[in-house]
Amino acid sequence: MKLSIERSTLLKAVSQAQSVVERRNTIPILANVLIEAEGDSVLFRATDLDIEVLDKAPAQVERAGATTVSAVTLHEIVRKLPDGALVTLADDGTSGRLTVEAGRSNFSLATLPKEDFPVMASSEYTSNFSAKAPELRRLFDKSKFAISTEETRYYLNGVYMHVAEGQGGKMLRCVATDGHRLARIDSELPDGADNMPGVIVPRKTVGELRKLLEDDDMSIAVSVSETKVRFSTPNITLTSKVIDGSFPDYTRVIPQGNTRKLEVDAAEFAQAVDRVATVSSERSRAVKLALDEDRLVLSVNAPDSGAAEEELAVAYGDERLEIGFNAKYLLEIASQVDRENAVFMFNSSGDPTLMREGNDTSAVYVVMPMRV
Amino acid sequence: MKLSIERSTLLKAVSQAQSVVERRNTIPILANVLIEAEGDSVLFRATDLDIEVLDKAPAQVERAGATTVSAVTLHEIVRKLPDGALVTLADDGTSGRLTVEAGRSNFSLATLPKEDFPVMASSEYTSNFSAKAPELRRLFDKSKFAISTEETRYYLNGVYMHVAEGQGGKMLRCVATDGHRLARIDSELPDGADNMPGVIVPRKTVGELRKLLEDDDMSIAVSVSETKVRFSTPNITLTSKVIDGSFPDYTRVIPQGNTRKLEVDAAEFAQAVDRVATVSSERSRAVKLALDEDRLVLSVNAPDSGAAEEELAVAYGDERLEIGFNAKYLLEIASQVDRENAVFMFNSSGDPTLMREGNDTSAVYVVMPMRV
Repeated sequence: MKLSIERSTLLKAVSQAQSVVERRNTIPILANVLIEAEGDSVLFRATDLDIEVLDKAPAQVERAGATTVSAVTLHEIVRKLPDGALVTLADDGTSGRLTVEAGRSNFSLATLPKEDFPVMASSEYTSNFSAKAPELRRLFDKSKFAISTEETRYYLNGVYMHVAEGQGGKMLRCVATDGHRLARIDSELPDGADNMPGVIVPRKTVGELRKLLEDDDMSIAVSVSETKVRFSTPNITLTSKVIDGSFPDYTRVIPQGNTRKLEVDAAEFAQAVDRVATVSSERSRAVKLALDEDRLVLSVNAPDSGAAEEELAVAYGDERLEIGFNAKYLLEIASQVDRENAVFMFNSSGDPTLMREGNDTSAVYVVMPMRV
Repeated sequence: MKLSIERSTLLKAVSQAQSVVERRNTIPILANVLIEAEGDSVLFRATDLDIEVLDKAPAQVERAGATTVSAVTLHEIVRKLPDGALVTLADDGTSGRLTVEAGRSNFSLATLPKEDFPVMASSEYTSNFSAKAPELRRLFDKSKFAISTEETRYYLNGVYMHVAEGQGGKMLRCVATDGHRLARIDSELPDGADNMPGVIVPRKTVGELRKLLEDDDMSIAVSVSETKVRFSTPNITLTSKVIDGSFPDYTRVIPQGNTRKLEVDAAEFAQAVDRVATVSSERSRAVKLALDEDRLVLSVNAPDSGAAEEELAVAYGDERLEIGFNAKYLLEIASQVDRENAVFMFNSSGDPTLMREGNDTSAVYVVMPMRV
């Protein structure tokens, strides 16, 4: 194998690869990126056995071939090369070394045979559709904060992407929850997605997917089967196993009958919550909301360190209510609001509370109260 | 006690205080800042028993008095208050609470009695002088990277500030070393510093001192005794115990007879060292320098992961030489060079190497070679 490639193109591909490989591996080849040169392009492939990323980049291929080298080391080298450099990768197929040359720099890296590289089995995708990058970005960005980190409830360790009946008919929906809070984000159903099986996209995949969604004009090809999901741009293909489990019936958690409505400037609210939470001990960051006619008093009482109180002018017309929440959860959902006021719908101090942005029901959040 | 103070003034004072207090304390009051209001100003004092910082800020004092509260909590609160806010601190002297008010925010913090706050014993300073902030900044910034972190050699855990005989007569000198590399930085001797006892300024004090040196036009009053050192600006006084030990005779370590001279662009050199070091295992980051007529070849050989080589055009006129160094040490000293080329003076591959900036001997670095 011998090829020349522009440094910034190489950096982009190798950067994606090294982010997928796990830092600690018992199987040495999983630390490597598979480099395959043929025609006028080169393929970079990396995997952790659950996720596979494949990056296709233009290159001048002098001699076709394939090999594998440490993704992290290659990435570090390319990162440190001067911008604009032309990089030559060459492998004689017998020495067990890949040479990397750029300008007056010369590297020789240990390789492992390409035959040992685990290539992910292909899948029969039952559903194929195309979605705009900003749509997917919104679905995952607004839901991922609620993903559970509890390993025992592994079926909550991802975003549940599925087709659901929304207000405007069938929608593409992403849901995540950890039992304390929940995010439900809807988007228009793309053509061809009707029969998509619901899949739980793992947290790491959500993170890797994010890198494919930066370009607003990009269309992402999505393929879904019962066991796998694939996201592709013209150059990058991200394939991931989905979490093998059933996502719980979240619809029962979303309160339907909450009628006490509070409308508040989201940024002002978040800042006030953040301030009053300062005095509480880290363990129980409980914030109390006391609601009265157009008036919200946030307070925290931490017997050993102190107390805090802040008043906000809000829109509230229902009867007096006191309710407590974990400060972190309140901050997280308030920070999802970017265009309008935050609208909270309460029932009683013991019931789940719903939050949305203005009157927009395409993004709905639920947060459980805590006793204060 | 009752006083009003501008939020940004308060933030500055409390920020310095919370940085001195230790995060983990067995003595609760050491987590607190002592606040003393009198006349038209307020004093903030914090200590870890080794360092004391005292900050004087203008305030409208309605009722003189003093109390102590958690430095970290107060800092967090003030940080989160809106810019431009006027903050009121009040304490009735009996409730054991300090109230902090700003706009519609209201905090009540647990206090501890001011009488329990440990105030550092004063010292008989035998030497008092004044130095410009940029001079002190240079002395400490260019030496601190070489401070040892080895606790058993506690006398190397700081910067040795003393008066020494330099090329232009008596100089104010800072030296730091960890046995592998050494930095020796000279500056003009300020009036009144002649009889200053040499003191080892602890690492943490060097860090805190740095915050007093941002303003180029500031004069810093320095007072030194055998056991303490004090740095003062008009508003801030930083007092620190010095390390109780003898700094080793560093002059024997600085090679006098090195004659083989290498001159190289410092940035280019550092980048090349950084690149070739990429392939080596983290443990032994040894870089080999092979010198020949106006030619430097940097190389690393790490049997299990690979090899790297890079050539640089340099000025070198002596006979062929091969010498190895720890890559991290080379990078650190090369990054001290900011104006001119780096000049290395070698003897043999087993002897300490000297580095300076151009022909300037007011900042000299020594690095021990390692076998490659």
